[in-house]
Amino acid sequence: MTHAPIPGYHYDDPARPASPVSTGELEQLAAATLFTDADVAALKVAGEVLADQVEQILDVWYGFVGSHGHLLAYFSTPEGTPIGEYLGAVRRRFGQWITDTCTRPYDARWLAQQEEIALRHTAERKNATDGARSVPHVPLRYLIAFIHPITATMRPFLAAKGHPEAEVEAMHQAWFKAVTLQVALWSRPYANAAW
Amino acid sequence: MTHAPIPGYHYDDPARPASPVSTGELEQLAAATLFTDADVAALKVAGEVLADQVEQILDVWYGFVGSHGHLLAYFSTPEGTPIGEYLGAVRRRFGQWITDTCTRPYDARWLAQQEEIALRHTAERKNATDGARSVPHVPLRYLIAFIHPITATMRPFLAAKGHPEAEVEAMHQAWFKAVTLQVALWSRPYANAAW
Repeated sequence: MTHAPIPGYHYDDPARPASPVSTGELEQLAAATLFTDADVAALKVAGEVLADQVEQILDVWYGFVGSHGHLLAYFSTPEGTPIGEYLGAVRRRFGQWITDTCTRPYDARWLAQQEEIALRHTAERKNATDGARSVPHVPLRYLIAFIHPITATMRPFLAAKGHPEAEVEAMHQAWFKAVTLQVALWSRPYANAAW
Repeated sequence: MTHAPIPGYHYDDPARPASPVSTGELEQLAAATLFTDADVAALKVAGEVLADQVEQILDVWYGFVGSHGHLLAYFSTPEGTPIGEYLGAVRRRFGQWITDTCTRPYDARWLAQQEEIALRHTAERKNATDGARSVPHVPLRYLIAFIHPITATMRPFLAAKGHPEAEVEAMHQAWFKAVTLQVALWSRPYANAAW
């Protein structure tokens, strides 16, 4: 099965800039979230479990954002009108992010992708990918706050294929760690030297 | 029962500076973590459940930090020698933080306390409270990474008093939200205008 390319998604582009974060720093950061090889294995299973549920997960997340004006604002014009095309363009990459979180090795290429995602939330790069006329940045506090909903809402989807409770819990904890780890990486350009 | 005062703990000092974060901003941030009145109620129960387990929880957390040299470094001299007095002084406030998280109203005074905790991780204020000769700041990435261990390790303590599974889960989710919310607040001085 072939998929149409996703605009603004360049994970495998060998020319993309490296992350300023080293794989050694990543290893230390991952240890601080308790992330281990068992989580890599659990995420692999999660990737299979979630593969045909990505659109439903995005429906939940977009429903959550859409029902809070102060969150929808980051997908809206400075005057407050939601931008449908921008919401849609981000949605395609957000869906791919679910898959990448479960299936990609957490290596230098993955770090480069996290740095790109990080910058796309900041004043340096937000809106540029999609040519959107939206507000200039997503405040750091909301990236961190979203660790909870992006984790909690995932559990029913991980449980949907009838895996034993202990395996669902292992997948959910691995997902929680992976989200926490990525938000920690996405905070880098906000804090710079104090990161 | 009276407790000796905790050095460096000034929660109820009416002279302490207000947080630059408003209660309106807190409300919006709390909504982004899905925090509701039900979580306030669950945390109240958690406060009772955890009251006589605080030292054991701190043993787990200090054991985790102590077993990772790159984390213990933030409680050590720049040359890498752990500072026992500093570890001990922070530990007393950390224990009180567990209680405060469960029992204090999340109001302007609570926000002032979060701002104080935030600054005590940054180059502006780290070490000052305890006169410690330690490294100058805790990198933001580790504050965020710790959302996972500080949440995950709490579950057995919440379950230890025999509450029904659904109630333990409610307490645990409320704790997760409360930790996420506080780390989002602690990130403020790291990001400043982009917070």
